[in-house]
Amino acid sequence: MALLPKEDAFDFLLFFLRNPRACPLLAVTDPGIPCPHSVAPGSNLASDLPKYLVWRDGILTDVLHDVTHLCTDDTVGFLWGCSFSWEALLSEAGLAPRHIVEGKNVPMYRTDLMNERVGPFGGQMVVSMRPYLPHEISEAARLTAAFPAAHGAPVHWGDPAAIGLTDEKLSRPDWGDAVSMRQGELPVFWACGVTPQTALLEAKLPLVVTHAPGHMFVTDLIDDELKEDVVDHRT
Amino acid sequence: MALLPKEDAFDFLLFFLRNPRACPLLAVTDPGIPCPHSVAPGSNLASDLPKYLVWRDGILTDVLHDVTHLCTDDTVGFLWGCSFSWEALLSEAGLAPRHIVEGKNVPMYRTDLMNERVGPFGGQMVVSMRPYLPHEISEAARLTAAFPAAHGAPVHWGDPAAIGLTDEKLSRPDWGDAVSMRQGELPVFWACGVTPQTALLEAKLPLVVTHAPGHMFVTDLIDDELKEDVVDHRT
Repeated sequence: MALLPKEDAFDFLLFFLRNPRACPLLAVTDPGIPCPHSVAPGSNLASDLPKYLVWRDGILTDVLHDVTHLCTDDTVGFLWGCSFSWEALLSEAGLAPRHIVEGKNVPMYRTDLMNERVGPFGGQMVVSMRPYLPHEISEAARLTAAFPAAHGAPVHWGDPAAIGLTDEKLSRPDWGDAVSMRQGELPVFWACGVTPQTALLEAKLPLVVTHAPGHMFVTDLIDDELKEDVVDHRT
Repeated sequence: MALLPKEDAFDFLLFFLRNPRACPLLAVTDPGIPCPHSVAPGSNLASDLPKYLVWRDGILTDVLHDVTHLCTDDTVGFLWGCSFSWEALLSEAGLAPRHIVEGKNVPMYRTDLMNERVGPFGGQMVVSMRPYLPHEISEAARLTAAFPAAHGAPVHWGDPAAIGLTDEKLSRPDWGDAVSMRQGELPVFWACGVTPQTALLEAKLPLVVTHAPGHMFVTDLIDDELKEDVVDHRT
């Protein structure tokens, strides 16, 4: 989730459309009306999240539980999908993500895959990683590919160096926690919603609000509703 | 095709996302760089169309063959799909659209189906009409549904009154030419790309450029490439 001025919203929206794997758009709100009607009627993006981060010129200045006072007639809200939407499905299929088994946050890495730049928004794709045995990967890929609104299928597996990650880097994620890799397992990488957030912060806009990590906005959509590309971006 | 200032481009882009049947977005260009790289590398939206209409405050003021001098660092180009992309397919399937058989332009009508409004952009959905016998409709619907980037399946068939059209109105289209209806045929309506153009003109922006009717921009995409939702909005 992000709240930003309308002045920058065109570039940010186009950034989503040009980088759909990392930035699966769920909803964009009308300026000044922070309610994503299509996915959560009656909600308020400025007050319904459990925790917000406030960024000024790209620097974290406040952690708040309500940002109503920071919103103007000009504020636009963005919501995008999260791989959490299909992790239960993987578990049900006997493919429980390792970080869930180990009670950790998913490991996330900044790759060297460049995003398609739009105005001030660029940077590299961030990915999440879940280790699987080679024979498990096609099923994990098949299950997640059905969720384009939640990053879809993996963007890479096997050779971390191909996306700019060393083995040593794997053990020290940029965000989240390292997880154990078992004998014969390969790292499988999915595009991650930290990507647009990173691009937004690196643009160093005067004032931007995002959700705090792990304190996301929960829509009225059930996971299965994300399963096909039924989200119509109405708000 | 439309060229408009970046100031209004966020609202117009969101209008496309919220009204996808009538407004199937193909590409949006970076401000000041009128080349839709993903669908026509090396092209120039300001000079490659055969004829342009120039609108000031919603009033047609010029008909030009080049609008390079009207473009600034701030000008954004929009391209959207057209039902022409599947008319050959209908003909090959023995379902030749009547207006093609009769050497006319397709009849188009302004319905009473309200568009989802975004900022200054609203109005009603415009539809194109092709008559078919009842047993032909499901096949015509199936064939066109595969082209979401070219308006997809029909939005209505059978009762024109259900979308605000009288029988008398059917014989006097708002745009294009009336076509003959044969015994037993029903009117079948598809969402039409005149919809965003109408919404744009009714917003009465100080300066907007559109393609002239029948003088569209031809991309490098072949019809079949529009068949699935492969257009990724990169430009």
